[in-house]
Amino acid sequence: MFGKYLTNTRKQKPMIHSITNYVTANDCANMLFACGASPCMTDDADEVADIVGLSSGLTINLGTLNDKRFEAMILAATAAGRSDKPIVFDPVGAGGSYVRTSRAEQFLSLSKPTVIRGNLSEIKVLSEVKVNNKKVFGGLTRGVDSPLNDFKASIDCSVGLAKKTGSIVVVSGSVDVITDGSSIRFVNNGDELLTSITGSGCMMSSVITAFVSSNPDNALDAATAAVCAMGICGQIAGERMGDKDGNASFRNYLIDAMFNLDEKTIDRMEDVKIQEVKNEDN
Amino acid sequence: MFGKYLTNTRKQKPMIHSITNYVTANDCANMLFACGASPCMTDDADEVADIVGLSSGLTINLGTLNDKRFEAMILAATAAGRSDKPIVFDPVGAGGSYVRTSRAEQFLSLSKPTVIRGNLSEIKVLSEVKVNNKKVFGGLTRGVDSPLNDFKASIDCSVGLAKKTGSIVVVSGSVDVITDGSSIRFVNNGDELLTSITGSGCMMSSVITAFVSSNPDNALDAATAAVCAMGICGQIAGERMGDKDGNASFRNYLIDAMFNLDEKTIDRMEDVKIQEVKNEDN
Amino acid sequence: MFGKYLTNTRKQKPMIHSITNYVTANDCANMLFACGASPCMTDDADEVADIVGLSSGLTINLGTLNDKRFEAMILAATAAGRSDKPIVFDPVGAGGSYVRTSRAEQFLSLSKPTVIRGNLSEIKVLSEVKVNNKKVFGGLTRGVDSPLNDFKASIDCSVGLAKKTGSIVVVSGSVDVITDGSSIRFVNNGDELLTSITGSGCMMSSVITAFVSSNPDNALDAATAAVCAMGICGQIAGERMGDKDGNASFRNYLIDAMFNLDEKTIDRMEDVKIQEVKNEDN
Repeated sequence: MFGKYLTNTRKQKPMIHSITNYVTANDCANMLFACGASPCMTDDADEVADIVGLSSGLTINLGTLNDKRFEAMILAATAAGRSDKPIVFDPVGAGGSYVRTSRAEQFLSLSKPTVIRGNLSEIKVLSEVKVNNKKVFGGLTRGVDSPLNDFKASIDCSVGLAKKTGSIVVVSGSVDVITDGSSIRFVNNGDELLTSITGSGCMMSSVITAFVSSNPDNALDAATAAVCAMGICGQIAGERMGDKDGNASFRNYLIDAMFNLDEKTIDRMEDVKIQEVKNEDN
Repeated sequence: MFGKYLTNTRKQKPMIHSITNYVTANDCANMLFACGASPCMTDDADEVADIVGLSSGLTINLGTLNDKRFEAMILAATAAGRSDKPIVFDPVGAGGSYVRTSRAEQFLSLSKPTVIRGNLSEIKVLSEVKVNNKKVFGGLTRGVDSPLNDFKASIDCSVGLAKKTGSIVVVSGSVDVITDGSSIRFVNNGDELLTSITGSGCMMSSVITAFVSSNPDNALDAATAAVCAMGICGQIAGERMGDKDGNASFRNYLIDAMFNLDEKTIDRMEDVKIQEVKNEDN
Repeated sequence: MFGKYLTNTRKQKPMIHSITNYVTANDCANMLFACGASPCMTDDADEVADIVGLSSGLTINLGTLNDKRFEAMILAATAAGRSDKPIVFDPVGAGGSYVRTSRAEQFLSLSKPTVIRGNLSEIKVLSEVKVNNKKVFGGLTRGVDSPLNDFKASIDCSVGLAKKTGSIVVVSGSVDVITDGSSIRFVNNGDELLTSITGSGCMMSSVITAFVSSNPDNALDAATAAVCAMGICGQIAGERMGDKDGNASFRNYLIDAMFNLDEKTIDRMEDVKIQEVKNEDN
C-alpha cells in the first residue's frame, strides 16, 4: 500500500534542501540519492532563499546548531512557507540545553512544518512549549489503545503537538508513531541496530522530506511510507550482517538497501496499524 | 600514457590543503590518502596562510560556503599564488544563488587557479561572468568536432573560460572535457553510479590537486590523468558491485579502487581523445 | 588485563560530548557507538555548558578550529573542570600554524585535561610551550630504556608534558607511548593502514574519552586500554582486508572491529610493556 510513494519519489527526483548538522550530512546526502532524490546542503543566510526556490522541499535539522545556521534556517523556512514547499523539522536534542529548546520553540512560532520528526524526549519537550502563545497542552488522547503500554506517552505527545502546530508528528522508537492529530499510525518495521549508528533519525527526516515533497497531496501517507521504508531498510541491512560486520557496515547496508528498495518490497514488508484518534476532551 | 602521473603522486606524497564543504570533506580526505597524498582541511582565515606554506597544493571548494570560509579561501589562494602553488577551484553550485555566483566571480578576479573543475552548468555560469572586467565571451570554438553532439556546450564554455582565465578547465559529465584553451581532451572513463553518490565531483577536484601538485611541469596532462584515474576507479567500483550493494558500497569501492590503482591499470584502461582547438575568430 | 575497561565502558554507556572537526566527526560518532558510548557533538558556546552537564566526558579536538569553536571549547572545558568530568585534548595540527599552537597553549593554561593525545610532532610542540608560565622543559627522562631508539623523543616529550600539565599524555605512533610522568607504557598493537585513513587519531581520542569516563578511578590504565583496543581493532581490520579492499573498507572494518570487540580479545591480543620513569634531575 505504501510502496507507491517511493515510486513517485523516484519519478519526481526532488531536490531537497537540507540545513543540517555536519556529523551526519554525508549520510543524509547519500540516503537522499538512494531514495531517488538529490541533496543540496547550503546553510548560509545570504543564499538559502535562492536555494529554496530551486528545491522541492526543505529539511531543518537542529544538530550542531549555532546562531548563524539558525538565522539561515528561519530564512529558508520563511521562503519555503511563502512558496508552499514542505518543511520537515528535526528538533535534534530539544530539551538538552536551554538555548536549543528555545530555538526549537522559536522555529515553531515562525514557521509551520509539514512534518516534525524526533524521538520521544524531543517531541515531549516540544509538546510542552508554547507555540504562538497557544497554551501548553498534551494528554488529550483518550480513545487510542496503545499497542504497547509504553506508547501512551508517544501518543499523547505526538497528538498534542500535532494539534497545537497543525504539523504531522513522527515519533521514532522501537515502534514509530505518526499522526496528524486525527489519524495515528504505528509502524513496526525497523531493526535494533538503527540505534547503534549516528544519523538514523537524521536520515529518516531526509527521506520523509523526499517522500512528502514528491507526494504533496497526501503528506500523512507519504510520511508513513518514508518511515516504513527506513524501517524496512533497517531490517534488510540487519539480515545482511555477517559475523565480522558492525555498525559501520550496517550504515552502508542501510543506505544500500534504500538504493535497491522498490515498491513491491515495501508493500510486502510494511507493518503498519492505523487508528483514528477519538478525543474526549477537545 | 597517463599512469605515470599517479606514480609521481605516490612518490611525492603531497600534502593538499583543502578548504571545502562539510558534506564531503571526509570522502575527499580519504580519497587523497588513496591516491598517495595527505589531507589538511583547516578553514580559518587566521591560519590558512601558514597552512598553505606547509602544503604542496590548494583545493578551494564552494560547497557549504559562508562569509568566514570565503575570507579564508581568498587568503589561502593569495598565499598559494605568491608561492606558485597550484590551486584547483571547484565552484560548487555556481549559478544556484546570486551570492554564490558572485563569490565565484570574485574568486576568479582575485586568484588564478591552475584548474577550474565543475559540471556543465557551473562552468557555463563562470564562462559568462566578467573576470577582471574582461568582456564576457564564449562560443569561440569552431574547429573542434564534438565526439557527441551535446558536447558543443561543454566545449564552448570550457574553452571560453580557459581563455578568459588562463586556467585549465575541466567539465565533468558522461564524457569529461579538459582544456587549456588550446588543446582539448575527452575522457570516456567513468560509471553511471558516480552520479548517485555525494562528493564525486569534490573527490575529483581533490585528486586533480594531488596530481597537479606532484607534476607541476605538465598540469594539463596531470589533470587529464586525474580525471582518467577517477573514471577508471568508477569503472572498477561499478564492476565490484554485488546484488545487495548500493551507492554507499559504491562510494567505498571507489575510494578502495583508487587505493589499489597503479600506473599499468591507468595505461591499460584510459580512454582519452586529444584534439587541438582551432579558433577561427580569435 | 586491559579488557575489563572495555567491559566497563559497555556497561556505563557514557554519553561523550565532543567538540571536534567536521572532517571526522561522523567516524568519531560511530566509533563511540561501537565501543558502547554515545556521542553528542554540539559546538555552540551558548549551550556547551548545558551539554557538558548531561555528559560523562568531553573530547576537545582542534581540527577545523576557529574562533567561535574555540570559545565553545574553553567554556565546555571550564564546565567539565568544575564538575570533575574527564577531558581528553587532541591538539590536531599544533605547530602547523602560529594561531593553532597559540590556542593549544591557551587551552592548556585554562583547563586541565585528563589526557592529551597527539602524534609526536604535536606533543613535542606542546612540551615546549609555557603552561601557566611554568618554564619550558623536556628531556628529563634518563631512566627509561626506549624499546626502539627513535622513541627517545616520544618519551622525553610525553614525560615532560605530563609533568608540566599533570595530564596523562599519549603519543600515537608505530608504538604508542602513554605516561602520567611516573609510569610509562608502550603499546605495540596497531596496523600500518591506520595511517592511510583520516580520523585514526581523532577516533582514538574519542575512545580514550569513553574509556576514561567509564573508569574514573584508573585513568592511566583506562587510557592504555583504549589505545590497545584501537590498535587491536586496526589489526583485526587489517586481517579482514581482501584483494580489492582499500582504505575506505579499512575504515569500516576498523569501526566494525570495535563494535565486535570483547574483553577476552583485548586480554589475548594486548601487547603492552610497562616501565617506571626514573628521573635523575627532578
